[in-house]
Amino acid sequence: MRDKITAIDLRILKLLAKNARLTYKELAELLGTTRQRISRRMNRLEQSGVILKYTIIPDYDAMGYIHVVLGVTIKPDVDIGEVINVLKNDENVKVIQRAIGSHNLVLHVIGPKDMKELERIISEVTKKIPGIESLDITFITETVKFETL
Amino acid sequence: MRDKITAIDLRILKLLAKNARLTYKELAELLGTTRQRISRRMNRLEQSGVILKYTIIPDYDAMGYIHVVLGVTIKPDVDIGEVINVLKNDENVKVIQRAIGSHNLVLHVIGPKDMKELERIISEVTKKIPGIESLDITFITETVKFETL
Repeated sequence: MRDKITAIDLRILKLLAKNARLTYKELAELLGTTRQRISRRMNRLEQSGVILKYTIIPDYDAMGYIHVVLGVTIKPDVDIGEVINVLKNDENVKVIQRAIGSHNLVLHVIGPKDMKELERIISEVTKKIPGIESLDITFITETVKFETL
Repeated sequence: MRDKITAIDLRILKLLAKNARLTYKELAELLGTTRQRISRRMNRLEQSGVILKYTIIPDYDAMGYIHVVLGVTIKPDVDIGEVINVLKNDENVKVIQRAIGSHNLVLHVIGPKDMKELERIISEVTKKIPGIESLDITFITETVKFETL
């Protein structure tokens, strides 16, 4: 059984969502507690998997990349777990999410601005997925807001 | 004109994408350079907007939330900029992205596991968008891989 997320955990998570580089000291001061307590709670949140990752959100356009979101609907008889195992090691597939609703698999691909090369990458990824029923391709042109909590 | 992203910038960005909490000292040691240089490059990447944010990727399911992705296609005569201005201040809309392709607006909503309440939130968001041509609703059930670079 997972640890319950406490009120202080939630406040730590919200602060880290705004700025993941806050130090234990800064978090302790903002929340009126000790560094030791912050460090202990954060370790627990990391170990229990509540914090999947501390990362940056880059401006792909500024870096010369294109950010593509693939919304995949796979036929019911295909084992999505197996598909994911194949895609996991694909360097071009940066995000893999299981889902229900309009799509049952969401993939993010970061590729170059060269559209021919991008087409090749996307086609290589989709070729690895058997039983695609439908595929939505969305090219993100600008991230206006990005909050995770 | 934007600064060019240098080879050292790219190496810093990739390390921070894996762990945004690396200190200047740790980055300097990993890249065989000085803390001063790391700090200077990171400031530049922040100020030029290449680094949009340092954040955490949480496990929404573990936190008791549901992560919903709305793929919106808006009729060509609607001003998407105006729609975005309205949605920007909506607390429930965490991610707003302009796009082209299958959708021209991508929204992420984080809501409670109470499906009735979630339905109310999604309907409040979509009511703010005039001229919706089609709407895909995808509920993320598991994030298997999440890399940003």
